Amino acid sequence: MSAFLDACRQVVGAQYLLTDADALAPYLVERRGNLSGKACAVARPGSSAEVAQLVRLCHQYRVPVVPQGGNTGLVLGSIPDDSGTALLLSLRRLNRIRDIDTVNDTITVDAGCILEHVQQAAADADRLFPLSLAAEGSCTIGGNLSSNAGGTAVLRYGNARELCLGLEVVTPQGELWDGLRGLRKDNTGYDLRDLYIGAEGTLGIITGAVLKLHPRPRAVRTALLALPTPDHALQLLTLTRRHCGAALTGFELMSAFCMELVHRHFPDMQSPFAMPHAQYALLELYDHESEQHATALLETLIGTALDEQTVADAVVATSLAQSAALWQWRECIPLAQAAEGRNIKHDISLPISRIADFIRVTDEALQQAFPGVRLVTFGHLGDGNLHYNVAPPADAGADFFMHQAAINRIVHDNVHAFDGSISAEHGIGALKREELLRYKSPLELQLMSRIKQALDPLNLMNPGKLL
Amino acid sequence: MSAFLDACRQVVGAQYLLTDADALAPYLVERRGNLSGKACAVARPGSSAEVAQLVRLCHQYRVPVVPQGGNTGLVLGSIPDDSGTALLLSLRRLNRIRDIDTVNDTITVDAGCILEHVQQAAADADRLFPLSLAAEGSCTIGGNLSSNAGGTAVLRYGNARELCLGLEVVTPQGELWDGLRGLRKDNTGYDLRDLYIGAEGTLGIITGAVLKLHPRPRAVRTALLALPTPDHALQLLTLTRRHCGAALTGFELMSAFCMELVHRHFPDMQSPFAMPHAQYALLELYDHESEQHATALLETLIGTALDEQTVADAVVATSLAQSAALWQWRECIPLAQAAEGRNIKHDISLPISRIADFIRVTDEALQQAFPGVRLVTFGHLGDGNLHYNVAPPADAGADFFMHQAAINRIVHDNVHAFDGSISAEHGIGALKREELLRYKSPLELQLMSRIKQALDPLNLMNPGKLL
Repeated sequence: MSAFLDACRQVVGAQYLLTDADALAPYLVERRGNLSGKACAVARPGSSAEVAQLVRLCHQYRVPVVPQGGNTGLVLGSIPDDSGTALLLSLRRLNRIRDIDTVNDTITVDAGCILEHVQQAAADADRLFPLSLAAEGSCTIGGNLSSNAGGTAVLRYGNARELCLGLEVVTPQGELWDGLRGLRKDNTGYDLRDLYIGAEGTLGIITGAVLKLHPRPRAVRTALLALPTPDHALQLLTLTRRHCGAALTGFELMSAFCMELVHRHFPDMQSPFAMPHAQYALLELYDHESEQHATALLETLIGTALDEQTVADAVVATSLAQSAALWQWRECIPLAQAAEGRNIKHDISLPISRIADFIRVTDEALQQAFPGVRLVTFGHLGDGNLHYNVAPPADAGADFFMHQAAINRIVHDNVHAFDGSISAEHGIGALKREELLRYKSPLELQLMSRIKQALDPLNLMNPGKLL
Repeated sequence: MSAFLDACRQVVGAQYLLTDADALAPYLVERRGNLSGKACAVARPGSSAEVAQLVRLCHQYRVPVVPQGGNTGLVLGSIPDDSGTALLLSLRRLNRIRDIDTVNDTITVDAGCILEHVQQAAADADRLFPLSLAAEGSCTIGGNLSSNAGGTAVLRYGNARELCLGLEVVTPQGELWDGLRGLRKDNTGYDLRDLYIGAEGTLGIITGAVLKLHPRPRAVRTALLALPTPDHALQLLTLTRRHCGAALTGFELMSAFCMELVHRHFPDMQSPFAMPHAQYALLELYDHESEQHATALLETLIGTALDEQTVADAVVATSLAQSAALWQWRECIPLAQAAEGRNIKHDISLPISRIADFIRVTDEALQQAFPGVRLVTFGHLGDGNLHYNVAPPADAGADFFMHQAAINRIVHDNVHAFDGSISAEHGIGALKREELLRYKSPLELQLMSRIKQALDPLNLMNPGKLL
């Protein structure tokens, strides 16, 4: 092991190979602070070439590699196991914006770039990089791609996958694949790009990417709409898609209990509605024409929705500050539920047409099994993605969480029955691996294993994750 | 072999196993009629289960399988080699629209459905399935997915890949993988879907798909614009993207010589311009609001482009008939060049920012090497995709085509130097396999081979294609 560490030190320089326990600690603890792993060292390479050299050494010495970006993942995807054998490879020093091309509308970046910096570089060039999610101030683009991140603008612009044209990847054997193509069309062989995207570092390490840029909208409009049921939210979604086409960028659903939690823990936030409602939808439109046009588009939509009694009430933001205030209701939900105490989280997706039935059936099943549970249901309805979180009954003690497995079973069994996915946007990591084995067909698991075996026969890349 | 054919006959029934030379012939000749292959039989299964049974027999008897849809491909991807050992598996009887869901906005189809039938089923449900290409009346959706087809609306809606949410695939071992998911977000493992898409039947046979639907536009506007150079076309593209956002669905470029050829071979077509220009751009906008809004959007755009002298002249279609007439100029180019005689075709893509330089440099190199060659350059500029076709000098004889390899070399060397792709939307098939081996990096070829070996170790799936 010391020969291996010496060789790594030669690659990155002594100051970028951390072996001291205190220095290692922040890399080994999961974001929520609950779980940690062990590593023989943390390497902080400064270039793709150094990543390749380190992985070659890992291959030579048979040392497992755990790549890590901003360490903001929610499924233990970038934390090593507790054997202490792995090298943790932090990509944070790979933080250059390599190139920006405003005619091709692409930006080429190192994998360790912080998402917010990529958004900013695009904005500085009068372009939009639309990937947007809660951790954008600290997550890295390499992590976003490795976990195929989603977020709040997927409805219009797609997941991380749809925003990527090309990749640079270090293979498990330490070779550097230059797939940094900036092409909208390229039918010359197997789609390696999309195989590495979402593979959670188990097939190779993404070190760079060519990303798509979009024109910046001239106006953004946000509205919060009150509705009686999730079915009404689905009607509103269909109406909005027909009415606004691609202008619709976000469509978030929040249940009454979510709003109640936010109000309880952020008492300064004034509800924009005179009376409470059962469901709320947060809509965002991006308009490429003008402020006036955006306003007219949204007003016509809301007028129609009120006339059709799809929505019961509506609030439209008429300034950036008001828009931010509406989004704050959505963004405070995770904070409010944390303040309320622990809950059992599920990041699921469903065919959009089945969401209302799923919620009804699953809510009922949970209430029957665990009377009084409180459901914190919110998420990206436009993508069929719900954060379906189960909080204990108000009077329950900590022993409620011994039912976690039983609750997961009820929720995930229903997801499966409704043709949904047990991981919509967070990935599998180490956390959901057993659930994956339970719900994936044996054939699909076998196909995945064959690909893993073909590309990483020694199983050194992020072992224990995903598969 | 006769035991194998008997077993196949038992699966599909005698009338669907063709062995008679006359019956086989239409399946074995390439669309343009130039090239043909041989097969031991043509099987016409009626269900995915029958496809799986046939492939199991092929696996058992070590018989190569060549899947075929509408047989409209341009790269010899669905024609067997001339060994006569392969079973040709025609998927045309798998032609059911299985399901349409207007809330989830998805359509589930058999792989053998004709593209136009899928478009029509979507339209009947007041939805748009936007994949559109010249062969849409006879190509199948399975072939579209296996070759990741492009077409004229990629700019807005993406390639076949971006229009597909889920697949059903028969593996080389004859198992049936049910990946027919209708989810916008699903991060549960490797992206098998995108691996099969574009694999040209070399990793398995697509038997069904879940496809995305979009809202139908309320108005469509088409304009033909005259420009002095390809650089001006790029300026216009950037202007249009900024001005129209996602409303821009098509942006086609055509050189003066293309228009001249159309005029020569279709003398009834009246040029909409008083005088000839060097380049023409055909624009299409889809609008979700109204006819009036679409007209205003396009008029403002053209006004700006004329003021900035980006365009020299413009014609706007004000009726469906006029719009069809403008598209006819674009659609007649392939017919006109065929009428003019043979030429040497290249289906290439480039970073959009490099297209003008590529055209200038490559035109010059070809003129230097082969003075008088006539360049039929047109294509989907918005996607960086050019059909860059080289016609002989007007006075050249048939022996000009002995220079085909040298011409390919000049064109593809320049494509490579400008970071482009030698196959933008047609795929590799048997036709471009040697070119692929020449231009792909050894590492990428090796990664592709490892995946092929892992999934199809006996190399029975469409052998001799792609890899």
